[in-house]
Amino acid sequence: MKFDFSYYNPTKIYFGKTSMKNLEPELESYGKNVLLVYGKAAIKKIGLYDDVIKALMNTKKNVTELEGIKSNPTYDQVLEGAKLVRENDIDLILAVGGGSVIDCAKAISVSAYCDGDPWQKYWVDFKPLDNETVPVASILTMTGTASEMNSGSVITNEEKMIKEGRVFPPSVNPKFSILNPEYTYTVPKIQMVSGIYDVMSHLCEQYFSGNDDNVSDYLLEALMKSLIFSARAALKNPEDYEARSNIMWCATMALNKITGVSKEQDWQVHGIEHQIGAYTDCPHGVGLAIVSIPYYLHVYKYGIDKFVRFATEVFCVKPDGKSKEEIAEEGIHALENFIKELGIPLTLREIGATEDMLPKIAYSVESGGGYKKVSQDEMLDILKDCF
Amino acid sequence: MKFDFSYYNPTKIYFGKTSMKNLEPELESYGKNVLLVYGKAAIKKIGLYDDVIKALMNTKKNVTELEGIKSNPTYDQVLEGAKLVRENDIDLILAVGGGSVIDCAKAISVSAYCDGDPWQKYWVDFKPLDNETVPVASILTMTGTASEMNSGSVITNEEKMIKEGRVFPPSVNPKFSILNPEYTYTVPKIQMVSGIYDVMSHLCEQYFSGNDDNVSDYLLEALMKSLIFSARAALKNPEDYEARSNIMWCATMALNKITGVSKEQDWQVHGIEHQIGAYTDCPHGVGLAIVSIPYYLHVYKYGIDKFVRFATEVFCVKPDGKSKEEIAEEGIHALENFIKELGIPLTLREIGATEDMLPKIAYSVESGGGYKKVSQDEMLDILKDCF
Repeated sequence: MKFDFSYYNPTKIYFGKTSMKNLEPELESYGKNVLLVYGKAAIKKIGLYDDVIKALMNTKKNVTELEGIKSNPTYDQVLEGAKLVRENDIDLILAVGGGSVIDCAKAISVSAYCDGDPWQKYWVDFKPLDNETVPVASILTMTGTASEMNSGSVITNEEKMIKEGRVFPPSVNPKFSILNPEYTYTVPKIQMVSGIYDVMSHLCEQYFSGNDDNVSDYLLEALMKSLIFSARAALKNPEDYEARSNIMWCATMALNKITGVSKEQDWQVHGIEHQIGAYTDCPHGVGLAIVSIPYYLHVYKYGIDKFVRFATEVFCVKPDGKSKEEIAEEGIHALENFIKELGIPLTLREIGATEDMLPKIAYSVESGGGYKKVSQDEMLDILKDCF
Repeated sequence: MKFDFSYYNPTKIYFGKTSMKNLEPELESYGKNVLLVYGKAAIKKIGLYDDVIKALMNTKKNVTELEGIKSNPTYDQVLEGAKLVRENDIDLILAVGGGSVIDCAKAISVSAYCDGDPWQKYWVDFKPLDNETVPVASILTMTGTASEMNSGSVITNEEKMIKEGRVFPPSVNPKFSILNPEYTYTVPKIQMVSGIYDVMSHLCEQYFSGNDDNVSDYLLEALMKSLIFSARAALKNPEDYEARSNIMWCATMALNKITGVSKEQDWQVHGIEHQIGAYTDCPHGVGLAIVSIPYYLHVYKYGIDKFVRFATEVFCVKPDGKSKEEIAEEGIHALENFIKELGIPLTLREIGATEDMLPKIAYSVESGGGYKKVSQDEMLDILKDCF
């Protein structure tokens, strides 16, 4: 392990078909005022809303609702939730939905009792969290972000046209999260595949960094292989419990931070996608998939050995008689084929981006990079390759 | 994921060369009476004892010491520690050493305020933990058990000649654990390789169970490959930081329970070894290594596909033109060769067992098993094969 690290993840996970039975006993540990945060009709259609309300009633909670959280949750919604927390003296924020809803719940938690403007303090100036927060818990209905077991919160400031992520201390993690893979059966296909690619990108962005040969690299490869295997099964039959449950747990493991310890990590693909999302409102994983291939083709030569390892270990590329470059490129194209299998569009054009957006996106992205620091001019080249 | 599960692991990990800097800030969170639990001279020789005492003095603690914890910690030592906790109104039990010391600290924690006989209640009748416990923290100097990030405690009752493990709730986990791989440099070679095989056995005993193809299986394979890779490097150069740190983190990951979720698991090899340990006091990993090969040769046909997968995925056995049995056996023999590489003896005779012990061991082992339930008569056959 090249770098020293600390790891602390205090989220309790309840996983599986019977996991909802843990909701009432958990609710008993919190005060009576609950803010229920969710998206649109989806949780009502599958009966989950009724189950949650029943558990809240059985445990005698006063429920305040904040519905309509967008798939790119907005800062306006965060401020609305923060106001509800203060007005109703909320003891627990219960997020029911996917990563967007949970991210929004965490943002509400840190913003409710923040002095001054939370956006400026936490998502622009990245100041340490120093105000009271409200416990968050989650019931997950869509996989991808791992927000159910981490302290991250990605919020879109529509006024400023910025989508920005912030990692808070572990005290902001959901206290408990309920993961029932059956809740994901009815997620529309585009959301399912977007979630799957989001997970793949989390794994790649941790993996393609540094040249060390450590535990985390092996674990990341394992999760990639498991994800690809299960994604193929879920594409054939979305109600394949085994497949959906493995995807769900892969997603949680991919960003509960355990696989990233001691890795440098390269979150440039996410950085670029956040700005594509701010301009096009595309599903997060779709934006990531579109950016990935041109990005990796742009940088792979600077981390060639890792891309060779990726090709041979994850996609079983046969190395015989090929140059390192050929093997690495074959691996990246295997990833491209996986994106095609998922049925995700491969160009910005297809998700409604226009050519005039490209410079705006490129020059609003923070420059980062793993094996190679990518300038904003290069970012524009990459975006042109995605167009 | 075949089975529903819950996962909660509240241990804070501080890992790396600089990890000791976290001791003082952590100590600030606990009351002033500390029970320091450790083994023999080892921690004094490397200067760790002095560093710990300095941190305890700087944070103005009253220190009570319990030294001389054995490598198979005894129930008598647990009772001695429990008495010290009560007499000195201990606020924190700080274990400095390997898994034995940490296991002993946890046992002291649950025993100090237990009504009646803790051995009978917790290690024989497996009653739920219902009394006050004392927080435990650890500084790890030897890898293997993962006791630094779980709630297990294996204790030997010398009077009854029983070595028994108990898994407590997560509240018994160390609150924080400091893992500096440099502390493991001076561990004698037999302890190093014993620890490495203990880890390998933890991975195998989770892996060889069930026929599902899920996230946990891939993660277990990843850890096995990482462990084998790093073990070879550490054998060449015990002060290879990269190798020792990867082994240390593999060990923690192998039994912090994250890789075992939704797996049936088969702890029969551990069950047999515990009784070998009770009779011979051999290093735990050595006992495990001796039992493993005859045990797996005895049961593999009942889980043949998993043993084929093990052979091809972990040891890269080429399957072409071979029967499943041939591939599986080649995998088990590759594991045997790995034990030989580690320099671990492969017979009970070499660790001082006598023939008359075999039936006593066999008939004191609880019958369990994964792919095949192993009777006590079969256990005796397996032990004869190990002799």
